[in-house]
Amino acid sequence: MAMSGTDPSRMREMNQLSVLWALRGTPPSTVTELSGRTGLSRPAADVLVQQLVTDGWAEVEEPGASSTVGRPARRYRFRATAGHVLGIDIGVHKILVMLCDLEGNLVQSLRRPADPQAGPDARLASVDQTIDDVLHKAGMAPADIWAVTIGVTGPVDENGRTIVSTPLPGWREADPIAHLRPRFTCPIRVENDCKLAAVAERWKGVAQDADDIVYLLAGLRTGAGLIIDGTLRRGHGGVAGEIGALKAVRWLNAPAHLSACPGVPSGAKPGDAAAWVFQAAREGDSAAKTAVQRYIRDLAVGVAALVLTLDPQIVVYGGGFSRSADLVLDPLRRELAKHCLRVPELRASTLSDESVALGALRLALDQVDTTLLGSRLAAPTAPQFS
Amino acid sequence: MAMSGTDPSRMREMNQLSVLWALRGTPPSTVTELSGRTGLSRPAADVLVQQLVTDGWAEVEEPGASSTVGRPARRYRFRATAGHVLGIDIGVHKILVMLCDLEGNLVQSLRRPADPQAGPDARLASVDQTIDDVLHKAGMAPADIWAVTIGVTGPVDENGRTIVSTPLPGWREADPIAHLRPRFTCPIRVENDCKLAAVAERWKGVAQDADDIVYLLAGLRTGAGLIIDGTLRRGHGGVAGEIGALKAVRWLNAPAHLSACPGVPSGAKPGDAAAWVFQAAREGDSAAKTAVQRYIRDLAVGVAALVLTLDPQIVVYGGGFSRSADLVLDPLRRELAKHCLRVPELRASTLSDESVALGALRLALDQVDTTLLGSRLAAPTAPQFS
Repeated sequence: MAMSGTDPSRMREMNQLSVLWALRGTPPSTVTELSGRTGLSRPAADVLVQQLVTDGWAEVEEPGASSTVGRPARRYRFRATAGHVLGIDIGVHKILVMLCDLEGNLVQSLRRPADPQAGPDARLASVDQTIDDVLHKAGMAPADIWAVTIGVTGPVDENGRTIVSTPLPGWREADPIAHLRPRFTCPIRVENDCKLAAVAERWKGVAQDADDIVYLLAGLRTGAGLIIDGTLRRGHGGVAGEIGALKAVRWLNAPAHLSACPGVPSGAKPGDAAAWVFQAAREGDSAAKTAVQRYIRDLAVGVAALVLTLDPQIVVYGGGFSRSADLVLDPLRRELAKHCLRVPELRASTLSDESVALGALRLALDQVDTTLLGSRLAAPTAPQFS
Repeated sequence: MAMSGTDPSRMREMNQLSVLWALRGTPPSTVTELSGRTGLSRPAADVLVQQLVTDGWAEVEEPGASSTVGRPARRYRFRATAGHVLGIDIGVHKILVMLCDLEGNLVQSLRRPADPQAGPDARLASVDQTIDDVLHKAGMAPADIWAVTIGVTGPVDENGRTIVSTPLPGWREADPIAHLRPRFTCPIRVENDCKLAAVAERWKGVAQDADDIVYLLAGLRTGAGLIIDGTLRRGHGGVAGEIGALKAVRWLNAPAHLSACPGVPSGAKPGDAAAWVFQAAREGDSAAKTAVQRYIRDLAVGVAALVLTLDPQIVVYGGGFSRSADLVLDPLRRELAKHCLRVPELRASTLSDESVALGALRLALDQVDTTLLGSRLAAPTAPQFS
């Protein structure tokens, strides 16, 4: 529609943004292509893309010495390395820090085992060290990072704190944003691990084709993350997906069927015990098969509550137990058929234990898009966040 | 942004639509105001609004003989009576048909009692008769109706059929769209009653300020309709909100606590029995108080499942039992506090038993907006739907 009455510098800024968005996520483009994609005249698109190159938002793709007849048109691409973001998974057993550029290309990834008993100070010190190592390996400083997203277990409030419940010892007192704030000028956000893993499945995992996803983080604890109409469901108070808190849906005790299985090696840690039971069931051990069956039967009640509420397209079985999805998916489908009016497609996650950090990267990139690229376009070398 | 390369007639059509949208839902506007709101030049806006008047989409508001100095500018308004829609509630005990104009102003509303035992032919004959009466009273013909939405109880599939379950006798065989198709050329749609009632609460009820709503249709059956991020949640197969199907959440038997209450007059119909129990509880009868308490305790498990999944802003207690919300809301809030991480605000519906038909009107209006106003703008006298 016509846009009269807009002040010229704002108009120019909007047109520049429009060229920038036309460059993103596409193969290198000629000025003619950019003109076609934005509706701007060719000379206007040319001026604007040159300015983007000067500012560092775009770069020229030099034409290769190919067999093309005549001089090929110059092509421009979004400069994905103009900025970078961090995705951090603060888990019970590990710290995982990932760094990617503005188009989500992974630059560095580093994991460090964590002591399950470590308190928040020790855990955050380990996070600091892992971030240092990642930045060092990437040859970057904290000022090169445009957004940080952190995943933790438990319901996260609007201040990034986990004050209701979490398996991380002492973490209800922790304030990860305040801890990292002195090092980073960029936005820092904390999100629940199940929610981030759900985001990751839609971005890089088995649910890229779906807009309505129930993601299950299945392990020694069971959690859920929801994507509704393509959007992560946080909920009005940030606690959407916490169906596991309802005793009637039996998630709280479902994994206990595995650790209570006769034959589990004495002294085995709970995670090892579960892995042992799944393997024994796979090999035909009848007590183990019964234990797995009971686990699935209880798991299914909570999944059915989510499915009956949302009627999603896909349920993704992720988390540590997804390695045993071969034993779980078919019986889970049969259990759901008993409870649900419509059984959605079930898929096993393939992102292993990187899903939380990957989802954190994706949310950090979204943050950059909305706060930086969505409003005013400055040169990318010194982004100013509030 | 600039729009070059668009063909002129398409451009004119888009500008005409833009003037039309600028007229809708606003007080009568001058050409200068329309120009400001659309960004079109004043002469262009003038030509376009004149065409809208000629076509019947807009009308002139004649300036009153007021004390204004000089000749006041002419004002134009959207012609809400250019078209009308029908909202129909096909219930167990009643048929309710409502007719409103394109801005949702109610023109006619007529209800007819239904025999709970009536089969689909008799029930649809009664629907026909009620539609005839409404159209007759409004002085309209079926061709004046631009969209029809029908509400029924039970999960509705994409063909408007209720083949899984419904308390309407024989209704699983009914095909209401095929039945009405010979009379109407406009789109006809069937939707679940709980979903429509949820839409009505956000449109005209107690949830107009909210985007995240769990609506409870509480009566002899308990159902739910969900509004998420301002959008009705249908679900991938149309069965979102059907949490009541899960035995573990205890909705199936919750209302039975009321009919089983000692002291209920023998031979009372279930609805009358429930009303008797609520009234007795209000008057302090201890058996009735216990029955209400048990009802609420079971109701709360299913509500908690919805709340834990979605973390909504508001829960609306609607349906027949909402007349007794004074007895239900406080204890329900206390029960939810036992189950949920965050208890949303609870509100009682005030739409009485018109909510399903009202929600049907709203969806019919949405249908008009998307199919007719959203694409190509023809004269409103003869709308052509596919």
